[in-house]
Amino acid sequence: MTQIDDVLAHIDANIDASLARMEALVRFKSISTDAAFKDDCRKAAEWLAASLQDIGFDGSVRETSGHPMVVGHDGDEGEKPGPDVLFYGHYDVQPVDPLELWNSDPFGPAIIEKDGVKMMTGRGTSDDKGQLLTFLEACRAYKAVKGSLPVKVSILLEGEEESGSGSLLPFLEANKSELSKDLALVCDTTMFDPETPAITTMLRGLVGEEITITAADRDLHSGSYGGPAANPIRVLARILADLHDENGRVQIPDFYDGVPELSPEVKAQWDSLPFDGDAFLGNVGLSIPTGETGYSIYEQISARPTCEFNGITGGYTGDGFKTVIASKASAKLSCRLVGQQDPHAIRKNLRAFIKARVPADCSVDFAEHGASPAHSLSPDFAPLKQGAKALQDEWGKAPIPMGMGGSIPIVGEFKSILEMDSLLIGFGLDDDNIHSPNEKYNIESYHRGIRSWARVLAALAE
Amino acid sequence: MTQIDDVLAHIDANIDASLARMEALVRFKSISTDAAFKDDCRKAAEWLAASLQDIGFDGSVRETSGHPMVVGHDGDEGEKPGPDVLFYGHYDVQPVDPLELWNSDPFGPAIIEKDGVKMMTGRGTSDDKGQLLTFLEACRAYKAVKGSLPVKVSILLEGEEESGSGSLLPFLEANKSELSKDLALVCDTTMFDPETPAITTMLRGLVGEEITITAADRDLHSGSYGGPAANPIRVLARILADLHDENGRVQIPDFYDGVPELSPEVKAQWDSLPFDGDAFLGNVGLSIPTGETGYSIYEQISARPTCEFNGITGGYTGDGFKTVIASKASAKLSCRLVGQQDPHAIRKNLRAFIKARVPADCSVDFAEHGASPAHSLSPDFAPLKQGAKALQDEWGKAPIPMGMGGSIPIVGEFKSILEMDSLLIGFGLDDDNIHSPNEKYNIESYHRGIRSWARVLAALAE
Repeated sequence: MTQIDDVLAHIDANIDASLARMEALVRFKSISTDAAFKDDCRKAAEWLAASLQDIGFDGSVRETSGHPMVVGHDGDEGEKPGPDVLFYGHYDVQPVDPLELWNSDPFGPAIIEKDGVKMMTGRGTSDDKGQLLTFLEACRAYKAVKGSLPVKVSILLEGEEESGSGSLLPFLEANKSELSKDLALVCDTTMFDPETPAITTMLRGLVGEEITITAADRDLHSGSYGGPAANPIRVLARILADLHDENGRVQIPDFYDGVPELSPEVKAQWDSLPFDGDAFLGNVGLSIPTGETGYSIYEQISARPTCEFNGITGGYTGDGFKTVIASKASAKLSCRLVGQQDPHAIRKNLRAFIKARVPADCSVDFAEHGASPAHSLSPDFAPLKQGAKALQDEWGKAPIPMGMGGSIPIVGEFKSILEMDSLLIGFGLDDDNIHSPNEKYNIESYHRGIRSWARVLAALAE
Repeated sequence: MTQIDDVLAHIDANIDASLARMEALVRFKSISTDAAFKDDCRKAAEWLAASLQDIGFDGSVRETSGHPMVVGHDGDEGEKPGPDVLFYGHYDVQPVDPLELWNSDPFGPAIIEKDGVKMMTGRGTSDDKGQLLTFLEACRAYKAVKGSLPVKVSILLEGEEESGSGSLLPFLEANKSELSKDLALVCDTTMFDPETPAITTMLRGLVGEEITITAADRDLHSGSYGGPAANPIRVLARILADLHDENGRVQIPDFYDGVPELSPEVKAQWDSLPFDGDAFLGNVGLSIPTGETGYSIYEQISARPTCEFNGITGGYTGDGFKTVIASKASAKLSCRLVGQQDPHAIRKNLRAFIKARVPADCSVDFAEHGASPAHSLSPDFAPLKQGAKALQDEWGKAPIPMGMGGSIPIVGEFKSILEMDSLLIGFGLDDDNIHSPNEKYNIESYHRGIRSWARVLAALAE
């Protein structure tokens, strides 16, 4: 019997109440990117602040120029061993379109069983409401059983992670002394597979950009003007087509500056992972990797930078047909960064690349959607070893040190502004459909996620 | 004093009543491409059938599998000199988006004065409700004054011209003997300029096509899958970029088969036209022709084929940002045809061109949006000479024989199914904003358009 078996037993005995709280949080339509859901975001923040108070934190809603932050510090003021930690999660979620592909209401969470696996469905169940609650519920159980937490804990919950984290930098700057701790804990990542835990030690950065091409000063009839009048869709298509070569290499000048090649050791380790690239693509109906030639699928998603097109629109897109030449066409694109790639240099070079391809009688406007550098953790970092031991205790397997394709801007900001490293532990799975219709979070991810965090908190104090 | 001065005087005296009828017709939201406006299309058809009856035609609404046709034959059964004619117009209109760019309600017609020019604003005022009424009002005045029309007149009004004319072919086939006359009169074209009438003797054909690329079987998170997973926007952009070379030449195989080069005589005549290409583009904020190198702007819009992109959509297109890799992306495109280009061969070759560029693990779906060959009229055609004289009488200037960039599918069908040529006379102007926000029709276009048709009817009987 370990010293926290009583905490774990309490978690097991109260899992239904934990799930009810997860359902309550998922019900808030906290889509941060769409102004129509501003009030829903605030209500989610208020609910979380009240929950923190309920657990015994001084939880409060803190204003920003965008959606509010939720901050809470453990009320227990005594000296504690181990690092003081700041836990981070985000309560905002992705939009739900296309709505018609959902099998149930994205904001009406339901517990279903599929292929023998129990899961809760709904937008945000995995990304990041269910995940952030694993930590809050671990704290709740710990305090309920032991009266206090083993290390000093503060909590920061953001409401703009899915929309560029515009308020994050100023908020961290303004509250530096309050939020700067010894270590950040982040729960927004995945397991290696349903049986194998993971700690994400490499994380890609992000540059998000929206480009709008304007040709004529009004929409034109393609019969009257077709031929001589510049078509912004044609201009845009050519620019996008130029952004990759035949080998999947991104053509933005100096794009690969600061991209490290993997050491032969790490490459050998990754090649030996039980990761089946064909199955990874096959699972979503694909079979031909489109990343850079010469890199494995695992390398393409975790160690290589990308330039992806996330949206495009222009002209008539409704039912039927309209013989129009649009005045404008636009695309949203994002670059994933690795190693020492500089997000600001990449945005600058991307814009120059595009401008050079816009005809003299057309114009281009740019809109910025977030910038964050990549992140990586040394294998000798003590909390990494402590976290790994805790996960091994819970799952019976050593966690895999993973490279993650996605970006968590906070990790870069924590390092640069608050001068602390982040330990990224999460319980999501590749089939959670985050950012897609029918998002879900397995009940086991939630339950053993809570248990895992209780173990991590205990391990950090050792 | 000519033999129809009394008719012209009646037109002048009753212009306000004619304008009121135009307003009534413009009020119907007869957007044929959008199923939400099905009832509005029917109501427009019913209004027109009643109007024909009011004039003395046996007007009726005729069912099709889409929006109805309106057909009417002059009730006057006596023998008449000159050709029996079938007048054609269309009562359906283009969608009105982007609505925020309209200065007034698109379906709330208003008569305004701008830079000293009186005009009626509203969707369809020019294309084609105002234009088709010029003919109906000429018939109304003629019958009111003379008791009968100088030639035998039938009228066919379509409700699907802006959405691919899906019902037209079967309707013409099914009603061949009823509708086949000696000559078709069509009012859906423009003047050369506000002072100079025109008869359109060359008309580009059209192939409309919608292509949808499917990559993964669901939307993906660009952090998890970015790199190896095929991105349908990238696939689509590359296909669209491949469709033109650096000189604006369309790259579909055999695309230029059947495209005639202009004779040196016609080229010389066109070069001497008072058409200012720089002003034509400058009027819409452009300056660099994007059609085929080596052809004048006038040739590019009237004598050369094109491939234009009319719409594109894929991924997240709302406010803010979503780091998604879409499952699907689609584009609407249309080719304008000239000479003997075969629309069916072009569609086949276009599809093959696209299929060859779709990766093996992605798929493409096609949807057809209309096909019509180009049209041209011999200068020796008798009704062309008669029409030209009538227009010269009204406007004091010989009409310009024009090549028109737009397509009027009916003209090809009239030739192939009903074996009759079409005389294309219209009073629209380049600045009418057809297919765009703030469509308008000048009051002078309407008034003198009615007078012109009265003269044409008289001339055809001579």
